[in-house]
Amino acid sequence: MSKAKFNVAMIGSGFIANVHSNAFRQVGHFFDIPYNICCKVICGRNRAKLEKTGFRWGWSELETDWQRVVARNDIDAVDIAVPNALHSAIAIAAAEAGKIVLCEKPLASSLEEAEKMTKAVRRIPNAVWFNYRRIPAVVLAKQLITEGRIGQAFHYRALYLNQSGNDPSKGNTWRYKRSEAGMGAAGDLLSHSLDLALYLNGAIRDLSAMMHTFAPHRDVDDATLLLSRFANGSIGTFEASRYGVGCQNRNTFEVNGSKGMLGFALDDMNQLDFFDATEPANLQAGRRIAVTGLDHPYGKNFWKPGHVLGYEHPFIATLGDFLNSIAQQEPFHANFEDALVVQRVLHAVERSSASRAWVNVDEIPTQPTIKR
Amino acid sequence: MSKAKFNVAMIGSGFIANVHSNAFRQVGHFFDIPYNICCKVICGRNRAKLEKTGFRWGWSELETDWQRVVARNDIDAVDIAVPNALHSAIAIAAAEAGKIVLCEKPLASSLEEAEKMTKAVRRIPNAVWFNYRRIPAVVLAKQLITEGRIGQAFHYRALYLNQSGNDPSKGNTWRYKRSEAGMGAAGDLLSHSLDLALYLNGAIRDLSAMMHTFAPHRDVDDATLLLSRFANGSIGTFEASRYGVGCQNRNTFEVNGSKGMLGFALDDMNQLDFFDATEPANLQAGRRIAVTGLDHPYGKNFWKPGHVLGYEHPFIATLGDFLNSIAQQEPFHANFEDALVVQRVLHAVERSSASRAWVNVDEIPTQPTIKR
Amino acid sequence: MSKAKFNVAMIGSGFIANVHSNAFRQVGHFFDIPYNICCKVICGRNRAKLEKTGFRWGWSELETDWQRVVARNDIDAVDIAVPNALHSAIAIAAAEAGKIVLCEKPLASSLEEAEKMTKAVRRIPNAVWFNYRRIPAVVLAKQLITEGRIGQAFHYRALYLNQSGNDPSKGNTWRYKRSEAGMGAAGDLLSHSLDLALYLNGAIRDLSAMMHTFAPHRDVDDATLLLSRFANGSIGTFEASRYGVGCQNRNTFEVNGSKGMLGFALDDMNQLDFFDATEPANLQAGRRIAVTGLDHPYGKNFWKPGHVLGYEHPFIATLGDFLNSIAQQEPFHANFEDALVVQRVLHAVERSSASRAWVNVDEIPTQPTIKR
Amino acid sequence: MSKAKFNVAMIGSGFIANVHSNAFRQVGHFFDIPYNICCKVICGRNRAKLEKTGFRWGWSELETDWQRVVARNDIDAVDIAVPNALHSAIAIAAAEAGKIVLCEKPLASSLEEAEKMTKAVRRIPNAVWFNYRRIPAVVLAKQLITEGRIGQAFHYRALYLNQSGNDPSKGNTWRYKRSEAGMGAAGDLLSHSLDLALYLNGAIRDLSAMMHTFAPHRDVDDATLLLSRFANGSIGTFEASRYGVGCQNRNTFEVNGSKGMLGFALDDMNQLDFFDATEPANLQAGRRIAVTGLDHPYGKNFWKPGHVLGYEHPFIATLGDFLNSIAQQEPFHANFEDALVVQRVLHAVERSSASRAWVNVDEIPTQPTIKR
Repeated sequence: MSKAKFNVAMIGSGFIANVHSNAFRQVGHFFDIPYNICCKVICGRNRAKLEKTGFRWGWSELETDWQRVVARNDIDAVDIAVPNALHSAIAIAAAEAGKIVLCEKPLASSLEEAEKMTKAVRRIPNAVWFNYRRIPAVVLAKQLITEGRIGQAFHYRALYLNQSGNDPSKGNTWRYKRSEAGMGAAGDLLSHSLDLALYLNGAIRDLSAMMHTFAPHRDVDDATLLLSRFANGSIGTFEASRYGVGCQNRNTFEVNGSKGMLGFALDDMNQLDFFDATEPANLQAGRRIAVTGLDHPYGKNFWKPGHVLGYEHPFIATLGDFLNSIAQQEPFHANFEDALVVQRVLHAVERSSASRAWVNVDEIPTQPTIKR
Repeated sequence: MSKAKFNVAMIGSGFIANVHSNAFRQVGHFFDIPYNICCKVICGRNRAKLEKTGFRWGWSELETDWQRVVARNDIDAVDIAVPNALHSAIAIAAAEAGKIVLCEKPLASSLEEAEKMTKAVRRIPNAVWFNYRRIPAVVLAKQLITEGRIGQAFHYRALYLNQSGNDPSKGNTWRYKRSEAGMGAAGDLLSHSLDLALYLNGAIRDLSAMMHTFAPHRDVDDATLLLSRFANGSIGTFEASRYGVGCQNRNTFEVNGSKGMLGFALDDMNQLDFFDATEPANLQAGRRIAVTGLDHPYGKNFWKPGHVLGYEHPFIATLGDFLNSIAQQEPFHANFEDALVVQRVLHAVERSSASRAWVNVDEIPTQPTIKR
Repeated sequence: MSKAKFNVAMIGSGFIANVHSNAFRQVGHFFDIPYNICCKVICGRNRAKLEKTGFRWGWSELETDWQRVVARNDIDAVDIAVPNALHSAIAIAAAEAGKIVLCEKPLASSLEEAEKMTKAVRRIPNAVWFNYRRIPAVVLAKQLITEGRIGQAFHYRALYLNQSGNDPSKGNTWRYKRSEAGMGAAGDLLSHSLDLALYLNGAIRDLSAMMHTFAPHRDVDDATLLLSRFANGSIGTFEASRYGVGCQNRNTFEVNGSKGMLGFALDDMNQLDFFDATEPANLQAGRRIAVTGLDHPYGKNFWKPGHVLGYEHPFIATLGDFLNSIAQQEPFHANFEDALVVQRVLHAVERSSASRAWVNVDEIPTQPTIKR
Repeated sequence: MSKAKFNVAMIGSGFIANVHSNAFRQVGHFFDIPYNICCKVICGRNRAKLEKTGFRWGWSELETDWQRVVARNDIDAVDIAVPNALHSAIAIAAAEAGKIVLCEKPLASSLEEAEKMTKAVRRIPNAVWFNYRRIPAVVLAKQLITEGRIGQAFHYRALYLNQSGNDPSKGNTWRYKRSEAGMGAAGDLLSHSLDLALYLNGAIRDLSAMMHTFAPHRDVDDATLLLSRFANGSIGTFEASRYGVGCQNRNTFEVNGSKGMLGFALDDMNQLDFFDATEPANLQAGRRIAVTGLDHPYGKNFWKPGHVLGYEHPFIATLGDFLNSIAQQEPFHANFEDALVVQRVLHAVERSSASRAWVNVDEIPTQPTIKR
């Protein structure tokens, strides 16, 4: 019953590093995993934050230089939880050192970096923390779509709104600087919506986008809106904003199809709305499914039916699935290639906004060395 | 195509007389009725209010003495929309004069009066304005129960809460005086909940009730709570209050049965909640049916699917059904006998509250002359 | 107390003619109006439908030729409730005959027609039935915006979704033919959303739109999506579709501003969502206002607090306000000029969709004779 | 920075032992605690379950005899997570051995046992896992009540409904046997509602209750309903049922007071409904507060504003607060005395149901040795 040791290095000590740390601590409590996770070293530049996060989650060692971490022989996996602009150097170095690589979304601060990173991890198990794919309600949505329960898709619409941009105290973090984040709401919020759209509704063909900055001196978008056509014939609208005053963390999607409709909202993350248009007319109705049952995705991993999950559980599920995929040498998604597709759409969004024209996503140039 | 004339006399000129007047004006626009309704005379004691209401709705004549109205040969139907304590004298006189009688709920201010009234109208078409029975969502609930869609009933629970009692400006109306209203929240609000419960879930066997008055000098109940057993084996809770601060007009019921659940709330009156426990486990969910479809009750009478109804429409439907029942000599519900059952339960409520003991509803004495 | 007679001619006998007829019948019951409304003549080409609608609402005369109606001296007002392509000829003829003109939305089936119509009614009282402006919750939203309660606007988003297009039985009506309707979802649904946006959030500067037809042989749009910039600096998204399966009549808008947020949904039309971002942080929350109080718009016209309104009430309020505006010689909105602005935006939408480019609304040519 | 060791023994290995284990594992990640928690030994009779739970949560040792556990010198705290009828022997033995005692609710399977237990722990830190007290929304409700934001209480109503009783597969567990559970829905569900009511609204004076068993051969209540009067003058209704088909875990309360209303539902556990009746009439509304902010209870312990908590977090908060109360020698609630009050009300419920009469809670005899 003794399991292989799995030594983890966390690069980063901010909010999301805490969320990842929790996942490493909790994954074995809820998933049968073939490894004995060891929280070996945490690395960060801000000493106070590093000590606090390291101590809080019981990381064995503290380190301030990520290159030393990546160079260690005793590290199996590197988890990247730092500002976007730092992702590529760390990911590429870790991959070159043969480490398993996990990376926070968005994958990179530019398409070029994302392509290099994706190339670098080609032969290495890799994952991107698009955690919302593993909310049970989202997985159920995917199942229902795959089963044809909503038929041919007509409309996809997604919102991701928070109000952080309207808060003057937020404006100075790395998330509001092009040099560190690459993009604003588009990278931070829209990337989540796009990943879910690609997962649930397939490839995006072309789009018309508007990136807008409300704050006078910011060099990233505060809000990004877009219209799109999907390869499956449906059409979509996306809106991501840090000026959605009244919305703290409103991440929603809806799909209308020939046989029904699905709807999800992160602030009611344990529920999925489903309208079945094939039922008798007098009973057709939106039904709100509490996705906490034993027959639901991850229903046997966490608590009991009717006992709700919170923000951290999809991270735990992401990690649980990733660890098992490594052991079973099976594909895992979202991986760097999936995240690269998001990055390509984000690039198309930037082009469309700059040119005030529709942009065909497939025409965004791809490095020929990247096989996909 | 010429229809029989149907001369109506309205007794009362307050809020509810306005609602009834609207029903008389509108019924022919939404229901095929065999009569040519004529709003002949309206009768009230307050001259200013009488003129205002009479003029507003186009009543042909104004009158201040109801006895003169009842004595007229040219009146086919008398509609009683005055304080509760006045119902019985008018209803009995109208019935004795051979008039069709419509009466606002609750039927009377005492069980004794209600029994006399019911006896008086025995051979005359009669109706009580328990209008909520004809909300489309409520009729759909009844249909689903009758079809066995929720199976054997276990629980029935009803609330009817408003906040009028906490408003000092309201305390002086007839509704807050035993001499005019008979009861407080029990007659005003609980009577509605009981009528719906009897309609949807059948007879009440026994009950334990608490009537409570919060205001220092009032002689009627501000709130009435009760536990009950139904003849069908289910158990119930009821709460009616004028101190439900935060609730303007919250009239709800829920039924849990072996196969599902139904729920209704008046402030979302176009919707019925239905949980079907016979569906596959992973899709079981509360569904919120918008009861505005062509296949729904009254779906062809009013607007189009998705176009909502308001407070007055169930009154119009009540009147439409009643007029057709007269022409077709078919039974109509809620009639005086139905309302008498409500009155008997209200009487049991008073007894139980006074005695602090369970009361068997069937043991409430009934006049032997009333055949039911 | 005798009032001036106001003879109305209704052109049309379909669904919306019924809704307008109801407004003429009910307006005097809920509004103090200075006229004695007379439902004089109804005109339609389908004899059976004409008779049915005429009889249902008590129109005194039936007519099949609208030109004869417009030529009559005894008609004060002409109400146009026919397919879009017929609006302009009737409106212009009625205006030339000196009639007051009311017209169903959208104003016309083309911008050119709309401009001619608007010019024709310049000196005549005129109204367009953009009825949703007079939902109490919408008026309250307008009041709160005007009072500055949500501060500077950042985002406006609107949906108008129904599922009629996915219903094969619907495809043959005039609404699905360019020759009769001019546009599809854009004219039918988006026009409502645009009118509310212009009313609540002001002028639209430029836009990028996509019109899409899902059904193989239709020549109108089944869905129209657009991104926009408003003159006030906010940015907007609009989506109108007849393929919104799962949505019967889902007309919503939301506005995020620097101080708060407003939200409305037609299927909960008695409620307005308001988030006040100036409150103490721990109590900030979306509040759902039941807009049925005495202090609310139209609160004294209809029923009591907590007693909900339905689909027809905003039509009654539109008519009540219009009649009073005539008597008091005050401006009334939405009038033909307001509807012309909507039509201009719709025209820009068509151009943008055709050219796959952003279009500046102000660059849409306007007839110089129209002073605005 | 080295902390005192705190050796825990868990008695039980079922569902709730897993939930408690999670709390012991997680408490240090979210709360500053003065101890170094050591999950020393877990004890259970079912070897397979014991091994599974012990291994899952990393308990150092497995044990099958609780008496051996209690006798160990190296155990600081004993946590009781076994069927109700076993609570008292373990708690008393642990207390006599000087251990800190934590006990799952309800405290005992009879009032007599509860009194003995409470006496036994008099001088020892003790806690009962009434975890719902520490849901942030519930704590905020308590704060608002304490601040007088809802004024004088009029009504308290609580539901706790699940559908487990209607599931034949459930009937054989200890929860459905008087010998092991003491009571059915009353102990399992109503105890939670009562604890919250006592916490939020104060003492219960008297009550009228109905305990009902739907299943033919069960000797515990499937549902318990009650009416009550509180010491503060308000009146209450409670309904707890395992036959609430359609409700998986519906635990709700509402309080109406002279100045406002509060409402909570466990399936939306991150939200609190608050109606402030002191606001201007036109803005009065139910507001739904997302209780995830930095200014909210436990807002700094868990994630970020807008990032929701799940079922396990209140357990973690309960443990965090308890551990700090021990170190600071401050009172902790809910403790055994608090749970004894619940047990006394449950006893009154049984008496009332058996006698079909109102029962005064203060007349339930109390052991004189218990000072409260």
